Amino acid sequence: MFIKNTWYVAAWDKEVTTENLFSRTIIGVPVLMYRKEDGSIVAMEDRCCHRGAPLSVGRREGDCVRCMYHGLKFDAAGQCVEAPAQKRIPIQAKVKTFPVVQRHRWVWVWMGDPAKADPDLIPDTQWLDHPDWRSLDGYIHYDVNYLLICDNLLDFSHLAFVHPTTLGGGDTTYAAVQPKVDRIDNGVRITRWALDVEPPPFAKAVKDWGGKVDRWNIYNFTLPATLLMDSGMAPAGTGAPEGNRQGAIEFRGCQAITPENEDSTHYFFAHPHNFSIDKPEVTKSIHESVVQAFDEDREIITAQKRSLALDPNFKMVPFGMDAALNQFRWVVAKCLEEEGLEAASAQAATADTVKA
Amino acid sequence: MFIKNTWYVAAWDKEVTTENLFSRTIIGVPVLMYRKEDGSIVAMEDRCCHRGAPLSVGRREGDCVRCMYHGLKFDAAGQCVEAPAQKRIPIQAKVKTFPVVQRHRWVWVWMGDPAKADPDLIPDTQWLDHPDWRSLDGYIHYDVNYLLICDNLLDFSHLAFVHPTTLGGGDTTYAAVQPKVDRIDNGVRITRWALDVEPPPFAKAVKDWGGKVDRWNIYNFTLPATLLMDSGMAPAGTGAPEGNRQGAIEFRGCQAITPENEDSTHYFFAHPHNFSIDKPEVTKSIHESVVQAFDEDREIITAQKRSLALDPNFKMVPFGMDAALNQFRWVVAKCLEEEGLEAASAQAATADTVKA
Amino acid sequence: MFIKNTWYVAAWDKEVTTENLFSRTIIGVPVLMYRKEDGSIVAMEDRCCHRGAPLSVGRREGDCVRCMYHGLKFDAAGQCVEAPAQKRIPIQAKVKTFPVVQRHRWVWVWMGDPAKADPDLIPDTQWLDHPDWRSLDGYIHYDVNYLLICDNLLDFSHLAFVHPTTLGGGDTTYAAVQPKVDRIDNGVRITRWALDVEPPPFAKAVKDWGGKVDRWNIYNFTLPATLLMDSGMAPAGTGAPEGNRQGAIEFRGCQAITPENEDSTHYFFAHPHNFSIDKPEVTKSIHESVVQAFDEDREIITAQKRSLALDPNFKMVPFGMDAALNQFRWVVAKCLEEEGLEAASAQAATADTVKA
Repeated sequence: MFIKNTWYVAAWDKEVTTENLFSRTIIGVPVLMYRKEDGSIVAMEDRCCHRGAPLSVGRREGDCVRCMYHGLKFDAAGQCVEAPAQKRIPIQAKVKTFPVVQRHRWVWVWMGDPAKADPDLIPDTQWLDHPDWRSLDGYIHYDVNYLLICDNLLDFSHLAFVHPTTLGGGDTTYAAVQPKVDRIDNGVRITRWALDVEPPPFAKAVKDWGGKVDRWNIYNFTLPATLLMDSGMAPAGTGAPEGNRQGAIEFRGCQAITPENEDSTHYFFAHPHNFSIDKPEVTKSIHESVVQAFDEDREIITAQKRSLALDPNFKMVPFGMDAALNQFRWVVAKCLEEEGLEAASAQAATADTVKA
Repeated sequence: MFIKNTWYVAAWDKEVTTENLFSRTIIGVPVLMYRKEDGSIVAMEDRCCHRGAPLSVGRREGDCVRCMYHGLKFDAAGQCVEAPAQKRIPIQAKVKTFPVVQRHRWVWVWMGDPAKADPDLIPDTQWLDHPDWRSLDGYIHYDVNYLLICDNLLDFSHLAFVHPTTLGGGDTTYAAVQPKVDRIDNGVRITRWALDVEPPPFAKAVKDWGGKVDRWNIYNFTLPATLLMDSGMAPAGTGAPEGNRQGAIEFRGCQAITPENEDSTHYFFAHPHNFSIDKPEVTKSIHESVVQAFDEDREIITAQKRSLALDPNFKMVPFGMDAALNQFRWVVAKCLEEEGLEAASAQAATADTVKA
Repeated sequence: MFIKNTWYVAAWDKEVTTENLFSRTIIGVPVLMYRKEDGSIVAMEDRCCHRGAPLSVGRREGDCVRCMYHGLKFDAAGQCVEAPAQKRIPIQAKVKTFPVVQRHRWVWVWMGDPAKADPDLIPDTQWLDHPDWRSLDGYIHYDVNYLLICDNLLDFSHLAFVHPTTLGGGDTTYAAVQPKVDRIDNGVRITRWALDVEPPPFAKAVKDWGGKVDRWNIYNFTLPATLLMDSGMAPAGTGAPEGNRQGAIEFRGCQAITPENEDSTHYFFAHPHNFSIDKPEVTKSIHESVVQAFDEDREIITAQKRSLALDPNFKMVPFGMDAALNQFRWVVAKCLEEEGLEAASAQAATADTVKA
């Protein structure tokens, strides 16, 4: 069960081209994406309305796509415009299309009611293509439900244990910090300052710190599952409670978790930095540390999933560090409930109409 | 759910030998097949009645088979005739056997009520071993429900799209033809004449046509899922509506689709021709084109199956070209319903007897 | 559904070390095992009580184990003793531990009510480390329910058919013997004397017999699924009905079948002998014959499982040789029923208390 009326990241912009047909399953629905000749993107259910063959193994014909099973041709609005063996096309011969927006390198699709698809709701990820910032494109695939990944990202106390040689480091002081958790629109905001800690390995790899650092991770985690983070570190100062930003290196992490199905998930990410932007080797080093760390996450989360699958009755014991993830799960549940109520209400209204 | 009172092709004759034990699952039931010393075929449930071990990993002993788990020996009628550790064999120690007929290279089994197994109901596939015709034996395995393959074979408009380099060719005129569909006993008869079309690649490979052709595909598709086809092509003539057969090459395609389980299927086929019968390379070329085309079918149908599996609520939009497949699906449904009624009625009759 | 109040073999002693964290799933529950610094063994649910991550991918810290997801630390009693991000540990932050006993090379765990875990109930397998006996450690994994393996071990008439070149031999006289079956506490006792039979291949490999032998297999098969056997053979004598033990070679087979899940099983075994104990090559030859034979069993039993899975309605036809296995299955069913009644009764008692 997934939230429908929200923008999901479906692809990096470069994955969708003018020549090819690109398919990715989003919240259980296979979505065909391609660019029209004017460069704008089409997002269409990847399933011919006739016998269900995937359109993505079909053929581009101008801005149209032809199903290569029985030859039906669909325009960019999903309407069937040609059927080899007949003249009159049934009016209901139409494939569903989805609102789609390309913005700052990401392709966002709206799987719910098109009337509600307001592009202004798309979060700002300007750092992905801003001239003052640099990053590389990241994507990994998970065989777990997306909420287990959200849990992971909503509690950074795991950094010292899952990522000792990458994002975390052996200094467990970081884990001992209680982050500040605030409810915001559609999610939570987490503020974590760790003062006078060892710089983590990935930061040591790009700068000689000469001592300890003040480190911050401040991020919004919002529906459906987007993390936008202001993070960085500076030589340890005296400025508690908020720490030092003098001589800092800074990042603007952008991460989007998009459910593929109940048991698998797409993970899009980049970790833009605004220093050494003329040194591709620094950008590469940061990216590789993040990829390695995310592989570490995937390993423990996949192990967790297998362990949970063995006992459907397992009850988790709550700890203080679960505050943010519990709040976010509550936000998700509330949104699902509202969409359910709305659907039920719409259904009731229709029923009334029919009766009346 | 499968039709039971019908003949299914279970094997090519050469697959069943005097030496070995051959096993193939037919409509969900594992069937052991072997030849007695007189060459006649035995078809028996491939499951020892004692503890369920497969008999096909057992041992031939004359016309009998011995289960190599605990040593029970069964005769060709399925009766247990020896048990190592005891003298008296329980009367119910019997493995089910099935009526089986070898005819024109195919081995047909009857999975339903043996009393109804009339060999005269077996369709005529004489071209498989007729001295004037040549073909090679074909078999492929599908991981889809058999009805999706029936659908494919009941609408040849897909030839231009799925088989552009084999059976179809780029000329979509072929797809535009509306075939004639007639209801016949237990199925449908399809007549498709495509006049003045490009000869398809597989036909070009065996003959220089010098121009366009008139092409016909006339076939009966009958329960459970047998396709017997008169097809061919001749240099384009003027003889509409029926086209030209002068200077033709002709085929008598024989295809049998046998469900293995709900989600997998056996596909037996051959494509006999009556020209160049002294040129094995022509027979080989035709066979290889057909095999390549059937691999193309399997690819799109398997993709279709995966796509349909993602959405159990998907509703297909009907097109005119579905006429034949819809009629055949109706014939299947009606037969299943009758068998169900019959079973229910038989049960009721038994109940009456018991009460009386 | 498995019996809970019983001792299961979980490992060979050498598998559980002071350095590592060893995990094995027993009756559906992942169990973490490790040795404390004093050498004693800890058996603990392999699942962190916080978010369910497996502890076995965690870190040893003295006699404790630290979960490497969020850093919770548990002592050998399963109590959480440290949480990086908070001072006060919730009292319910505890991982379940299981009574565990190492005895004669095997590690036994008790998955049920700890109050009932009486080590005196552990069967005697002294031959596994007795100075007068020699054997090698055996373990194989099965992808079938454990009861199918019990069935196999409770009817040795299969030896002549499944193991003609190892434990059985081509002489089917052995299978024709009716063993004596006695009910004992928690199981059955089987006595099988086969007189004047060919020595089986594995025995020929270690001794020149010069003729036929009298052979015995006398074993207890008890809950949950433990086989302890006095077996051997001697040159054929005249001493019916009990046969000859003069000049015999003797074995004390120890086998333990431990369910992993409903569809997979652990199999621990050894085949101690008290002759040629200074000849490691004899011990090795015997062990290899047994391993080969158990691979033969696994092949037929796995084929049986697949065959049974095809037809959930299959009814087995009983034969005389099933006497022992039917009795044992009855013992299992009765024990499961009693545990169910006990659980229901305990629940009722609690309900009464609440009401009162």
